[in-house]
Parts: sequence; structure tokens; C-alpha cells
Amino acid sequence: MRVGVIGATGAVGRELVEVLGRRRFPVTKLRLFASGRSAGTRVETPFGPVVIEEFSQDRARDLDLALLAVSGDFAKAHAPGLVAAGVTVVDNSSAFRLEDAVPLVVPEVNAAALGEAKLIANPNCTTAILVVALAPLHAAFGLKRVIVSTYQAASGAGAEGMTELERETRRVLVEGEPARNEVFAHPLAFNVIPHIDTFQPNAYTREEMKVTWETRKIMGLPDLPISCTAVRIPTMRVHAESVTIETLRPVTAEAARAVLRAAAGVRVVDEPARNLYPMPLTATGQDDVEAGRIRANPVFGDHGLDLFLCGDQLLKGAALNAVQIAERLPALQVPA
Amino acid sequence: MRVGVIGATGAVGRELVEVLGRRRFPVTKLRLFASGRSAGTRVETPFGPVVIEEFSQDRARDLDLALLAVSGDFAKAHAPGLVAAGVTVVDNSSAFRLEDAVPLVVPEVNAAALGEAKLIANPNCTTAILVVALAPLHAAFGLKRVIVSTYQAASGAGAEGMTELERETRRVLVEGEPARNEVFAHPLAFNVIPHIDTFQPNAYTREEMKVTWETRKIMGLPDLPISCTAVRIPTMRVHAESVTIETLRPVTAEAARAVLRAAAGVRVVDEPARNLYPMPLTATGQDDVEAGRIRANPVFGDHGLDLFLCGDQLLKGAALNAVQIAERLPALQVPA
Repeated sequence: MRVGVIGATGAVGRELVEVLGRRRFPVTKLRLFASGRSAGTRVETPFGPVVIEEFSQDRARDLDLALLAVSGDFAKAHAPGLVAAGVTVVDNSSAFRLEDAVPLVVPEVNAAALGEAKLIANPNCTTAILVVALAPLHAAFGLKRVIVSTYQAASGAGAEGMTELERETRRVLVEGEPARNEVFAHPLAFNVIPHIDTFQPNAYTREEMKVTWETRKIMGLPDLPISCTAVRIPTMRVHAESVTIETLRPVTAEAARAVLRAAAGVRVVDEPARNLYPMPLTATGQDDVEAGRIRANPVFGDHGLDLFLCGDQLLKGAALNAVQIAERLPALQVPA
Repeated sequence: MRVGVIGATGAVGRELVEVLGRRRFPVTKLRLFASGRSAGTRVETPFGPVVIEEFSQDRARDLDLALLAVSGDFAKAHAPGLVAAGVTVVDNSSAFRLEDAVPLVVPEVNAAALGEAKLIANPNCTTAILVVALAPLHAAFGLKRVIVSTYQAASGAGAEGMTELERETRRVLVEGEPARNEVFAHPLAFNVIPHIDTFQPNAYTREEMKVTWETRKIMGLPDLPISCTAVRIPTMRVHAESVTIETLRPVTAEAARAVLRAAAGVRVVDEPARNLYPMPLTATGQDDVEAGRIRANPVFGDHGLDLFLCGDQLLKGAALNAVQIAERLPALQVPA
């Protein structure tokens, strides 16, 4: 299988290469594409050394699979051309996620939606982390409403976001000067920014609406009431989510815990007596989404549940889910 | 007015002295009490230099007003004795907050509850910040349910918490070593800890239940359904809160904004087009609670509202509210 990673020098791109290697993806030839600035650089990969190429559709047209970790505009400009050339494309951007003809897939939830598609969208990171827990709860208890507040890491803004958080935190602590910002709308060091992506006419941000729109599409529940408050906090690469649901059928914490223990992609970490609950510290670098703080929420009588999730934004929130999608592609069931 | 600050060397104690000075509280003599370890230390205050005394009930019995910034156990041991000696006590601990005979007061909300009380409880920091926004919304629209997820700063664990966050963040960035922890249950640097205070049998933490119990008492709504998820994050001294409410009467973002603009103790910061919303960066050192991200929450039809609050944990969440209580005491309406 000739696999290309487009946007290979970014935070998600680098993680894609690692995940392909770690999961022993059947790569016969790995090619890495980036901007002209990085072209020519030789990088070590689990598949041997690879020299980064400047991307062009023409250079990438003989790939079997292209994993896109690029901007929405870039994906819009190039994904259709690659697909037309016979390349299967898994796109990490938001460009195609809401198009009816494009499956938006979290394999634990809706792998069947893949069909024979040659262009597949990888969801928003917060959404991917959320639905692996919501889908089994919906199957067991039915979802009536979902309310989410997020604690999102710097990695959601790419490698530049992580670099800025580290550099500016150092500026505060070591140089004793105020933090600065270029990547984020405000300095993030020791701060909280309730603003991710652009504001929409309804006063929600686009990030918040992505969680609504994409969760509905992935779960096949086009009318599910969801409200999200998306908040950037000074952590590196794990998104946390405080989730409240109202269910259609009665729910208990114990029953919910049993459902989540049996769910693929979820690791229940819920032993308060031993100070065990989801945290970025423990979820970093982990494939599974940690779920804990599972408790009956009396606000909705015996139909309410609170839980807390932590998922690695670069793994389940991006690179891992993209590779999991690729692993399920019908084209890849035939040996290259 | 002879005023004593008990626990004067802690984060809240130091802030109490500043707030008394800044608000020109009618202090004729300021006395500062702490443990024997700090006794004898001379500190500069807005009321002149003061030598810290080791606390004893006997030494403190001729105060008119004692502001307690000490543990619940310490308050339980000493507040009744001070009151018996004729001292009016405002206690920042949780020791007396839920006792029927003790008013629990946020002056903007329930100053009338003060009556002739000689012992007054200052609420939990998260609660104080929450109710200044909830109370006017309740008056205007009626509250049916409240769901809160918090983003709580290190200062909630006192000066030691702030020191630990700073020292351990430096250890990660400068020494490249893993963060350690003594004050917090886990390392807080670049982490999120969904665990504040002890776990209760219902799987909520005591911090989360304080928000429920105290909000109900302050607002005089003993049955109000409230669920809180209390989360420690790596910020210094401002608590943020993501709040979702369902109202009894229809609500719009515009109407809610007008109500909050007219509310005492609240500053509406809600201009997304100019990137203005509540943040620790802007709420630090401010008396008012910032309220923003105000929007209709479709999860509850036309009866839902989301908002985001930021309040200085050491000010409205502690020292400021305590001094505001003291300013309203009937005893203090008579010149000393």
C-alpha cells in the first residue's frame, strides 16, 4: 500500500507517521509531503528514512492512500483531484465533514458509513473523543439532550499552539514578563480562553457548532439537542470534556459504567477512592478515551448522567482515528 | 472599629488586609493573627505597620470584628468563643455555612439575611462567583435547573497551591523533569484534575455539593436542581465557570444580557466581534465577576441559556465578599 501523509511536518502529520508504524499499517512505500520550506529534509520513520517532498497533486497521484493533515482550504483545493486520480483520501480538515456524500467516521461508532467511499472525513477532535462515549450510552439508554463544556489543549492549534504555550509560559515564569500571543486570540499561559475558531451568528463558536453538527451526523441523530461550550486551557495535547446527558430511559451510574467498560475505544477510569479519574496526565499518548466521574445527575431525575472524558487530541482526536478509518477501507482489504 | 484578620499570612488573609485598605473600611486598629511560626513578623499594611500575633481567643476577645481565613476545624474551635466574647465573626471556612442559625451571605443577593447575626458565613468561592449572576437571572426569568462546569485556579488551595503550580511548571519547563505534587492530588502543571475536596457517597465531590447546597441556601431555593462538575486547572487565581440554565419563563440572550448589565457585582464582557469575553487574564484583581458568552441554548427550547463567568477567587470568591459582608453589619452602622 503506497501511503502519503500530506502536511507531514505538522503536529497531526508527525503523529500520523507514528501511528501508522505503531499499528503496523501495511505500508509498502511511505511518502511525506509538506510545503516547499520543508522539502528535501530527511526524516526517520518507522518505515525507514523518508525525504520530504513538496506537495503537488501530480506528485501524489500514484498513492493508494493519502492522509491529509492540512487546512480546509488546502483540502478543498486538492482532495477532489486526488480522488479523481484514484487515490483514497482521509481528510482531517472540516472541509468535507458535513457534505452528504462524504462519510464522517469514527470507526467504533459508524464504520458502516464508510461504504465504498474514496473520500472520508475525519471529525473534529472534540467530537471524536465525545462520540466514542456517547454512542454506547445512546444505544443503552437513549440520548435526549447533551450539554458539554470542554477543556481543550494547545495542540488543537497545531504544533505552533504547543510551542506558543511552552514559550510564553516560560516567559512568564523565567523572564517575569507578560505572556504574548500570535497563534491564540489571547495569551494562553495561566489563562482560559472561551473562544475556539470563529464566532457564528448564533453566538456559538464554529468549534462549538462542529461538536453539534458532527456528533449528529456520526450518530445518525440529526435532531439531537446538543450545546457545547468550547474552552482553550493551558494544557498540551489532551482535551477534557465535562458531559451532562439527559436520557430517554432511566440510567444509573453503575449501568452507565458497565456500558462504557464494554465500549470499544473507551477506558473507564473511575475509582475516586484511589484518586483515579480521567486526566491529561494519564490520557496523553493513549489511544483510548478515558471516561470517569460517572454519576447520576439529579437535575434530570433518574434520567441524568454526568461524566468526564479525556482523550489525546492528536490521537483519537486526529491521527489515530484517521488511521483507524484507513484500516477499515474496503480497498485495503485486498493485499497491494 | 477594632478589626482582626485571623489567618493573616495565607492567600485570603493577605487579600483581606488589602481589601480593607482599598475599600477604606473604618479600621481604628488592625490586628493580624497567625500561627506561632509567623508571630513577631512585622508587615506593612494600608493601616500602617502591624506585628503579627499568635492567635488565641483570649488575645482576640476585645476585637469588634474578626475576619477568619482559617480551616473549618479552626473556625469550629474558636468562632463560638469569639462570638461569646462579643466579637462579630465573618468566617471564610465551610464550618458554619449550612447551619440554619448562621446567615450565608453574598451581599448583592441576600444582604437581608444578615439580620443581627454575630456569626456570618462567607460562601465557597465558586458559589459566590456563581450566585451574583444566577440571582438576577432568577429574578427575571426563574431558574428551573442549573448545570455548571468549573475551571478552578490554584489559589483555591491557598498560597501553597499557587506556589506549587508555579514551582512545578518551572520544573517541567526549565529542568525538563516531571511535575510533582504535595498540595494537589496530582501534579497540576499542564494537567486538569476533576477532583476538589473529598468525594461524597453520591460520587460528587464536596466542592461540587457545596455549590449545590450553598447556592440553594443563599438564593432561598432549597429545591433548585443543580449539578456541578468542579475541575482544577493550571491557572493562578481566577475561577471560570461554564453555566447552563433552564428557565421557567422564556429567555433570550439579549434579555439576559440586559439583566446582567444592571446587576450589582457583575460586569458583562460579551463582545465576541472584538474578542472580548470573560478570562482569568482580565478578571484577575477585579472585584466584579465577568459574565459573557451569553447565548440562547437550544437544548432547552426558548428556555435555555449558556453563559461563561470569571471571578477572582481571592476577591469575590473570598476576601472581597467577606469585607462586603462586614460593611453591611448593623453593628458597623454606628461609628466606633
